[in-house]
Amino acid sequence: LGIGDDAAIIRQFDGRDTVITADLLVEGIDFRRAWMPPRLLGHKALAVSLSDIAAMGARPRWAMLSIGVPPDVWRSSFVDQFYEGFFALADYYGVVLIGGDVSRTPDRVVIDSIVLGEVAMGRAVLRTGARPGDHIFVTGTLGGSAAGLRLLEHGARLAEKATSQRASREIEELQLRHLQPLPRVEWGERLGHERLATAMIDLSDGLSSDLTHLCEESGVGASLDVSRIPVDPHVASKGVRRALDPLMLALHGGEDFELLFTIRPRDLRRLPRSVNRVPATYIGDVTGDAGRIILVEGTRRWTLKPGGFQHFDF
Amino acid sequence: LGIGDDAAIIRQFDGRDTVITADLLVEGIDFRRAWMPPRLLGHKALAVSLSDIAAMGARPRWAMLSIGVPPDVWRSSFVDQFYEGFFALADYYGVVLIGGDVSRTPDRVVIDSIVLGEVAMGRAVLRTGARPGDHIFVTGTLGGSAAGLRLLEHGARLAEKATSQRASREIEELQLRHLQPLPRVEWGERLGHERLATAMIDLSDGLSSDLTHLCEESGVGASLDVSRIPVDPHVASKGVRRALDPLMLALHGGEDFELLFTIRPRDLRRLPRSVNRVPATYIGDVTGDAGRIILVEGTRRWTLKPGGFQHFDF
Repeated sequence: LGIGDDAAIIRQFDGRDTVITADLLVEGIDFRRAWMPPRLLGHKALAVSLSDIAAMGARPRWAMLSIGVPPDVWRSSFVDQFYEGFFALADYYGVVLIGGDVSRTPDRVVIDSIVLGEVAMGRAVLRTGARPGDHIFVTGTLGGSAAGLRLLEHGARLAEKATSQRASREIEELQLRHLQPLPRVEWGERLGHERLATAMIDLSDGLSSDLTHLCEESGVGASLDVSRIPVDPHVASKGVRRALDPLMLALHGGEDFELLFTIRPRDLRRLPRSVNRVPATYIGDVTGDAGRIILVEGTRRWTLKPGGFQHFDF
Repeated sequence: LGIGDDAAIIRQFDGRDTVITADLLVEGIDFRRAWMPPRLLGHKALAVSLSDIAAMGARPRWAMLSIGVPPDVWRSSFVDQFYEGFFALADYYGVVLIGGDVSRTPDRVVIDSIVLGEVAMGRAVLRTGARPGDHIFVTGTLGGSAAGLRLLEHGARLAEKATSQRASREIEELQLRHLQPLPRVEWGERLGHERLATAMIDLSDGLSSDLTHLCEESGVGASLDVSRIPVDPHVASKGVRRALDPLMLALHGGEDFELLFTIRPRDLRRLPRSVNRVPATYIGDVTGDAGRIILVEGTRRWTLKPGGFQHFDF
């Protein structure tokens, strides 16, 4: 039972767990209205929460939306377009909006996106389950969202019409990686349902930070093979790289919303190569050296610090 | 399983329903930092959501909190004091904080308070169940919060130290009715658990508006006996009334967070006079005249319009 009463109602069933997440998006901090078409903001507000649910190995079912809007924005088509983007993604995954709150704000848009999902009892994938010897995988490609953000910061904007020029198309693709991220809902559900992942986290802060979180929660370390990190092909492309360092963006850039997970060696044969045409890539291994993340590049080894490097000689 | 992963996890059980609500509080709209001590803001953020859960006849169990704070406020003791007020109320009701989000904001505090409750399957009390002939009750007293807000708007502030003067004490009590509302958690749970209420809503917008909502959702009308409306005794007191019209405040003032409910005549004998020393007062009856709310005062009758009166002669 949804919208229209003091609260929404969801029936419970033995053998299921509910997972729930909330993500606050504040104008001027998490997005800029000048860059962000309202339809894509509606998409992204839901996408970031779907990504959290996917990272638990759960299936998203219900959403709530608290939205604060200043009067001038309220009178525009902003809210309609926002909901259009929100519902397009919600409908695609069968997620039902069951409630929330609407408020005026003095001058900025603020959104709190709440998503509830379900998972078979005890099958939620936590950050705590990685063990030494597990392999580390990541879905999709990395660095695209951070590159898109850099391009937006330097004045790039989405064109009204599609372009046929290859360089322009690549620049648009990168902006969309930032403005319209695709949560890995199918991957998350599959990894949880088939008990494939021992630990999982979604890449919102960036590979270096989020792998650090996962290792801390599991009490383990990690060794990453730099040459295996799947850098976004547009980031690596000549047409757009210039001042961008693809590896730095892939390691430290946030908001790719890919899934980082660990898997036991004996379960590898059950791991699909791709789900919904999104591949998962082996990038390294879990170690017993708690708290330390080593980057291996050929014969060289670095110790990773989140957001930066520390040189390390052997 | 709570804070520290991508999402929180709650176990489901056959025979239970989950109820969930979200309330957005925006600085400059829903509160002013100059009036609102952070400890009371933490209390109120949770209280408004507990009130929604109570209005469903459910028991509050878990909370999530999304909070956005500007840098200068972050560096102050604001957040600590906010959580102190939040947890004092949460602990009192055994409500556990299981997650949420924290974000920077450019310049204003924003809070989204999410509360999940539980109720036996199918026993949630909706707004739709009122039937002609049911009696209408309200818990506690009305108009105090709106009077407190008027006093704050006219420059009254909570004193640092307790006062012994009766008039000052009354002015403080009214401010606290606005700044630190007490949700009727025990009443709500009792009315739901014992299937006493046919419909229920919490008084956040005001008696006139919220009774209108309930009547619309139930497809009924109502007749209110004006002399029975329990006006807050401090509002009616000589010391503070002056420019305040007690009945107007009780009818149209918002944020009292009392419960308005309807009950079948045959269930009246099972209704407690008070719960936790908070009484419930009979104020009128449900009628079949859908959408019309009549105020009866002796031999005079008025038709109510939410937020104002329309004169009506018989």
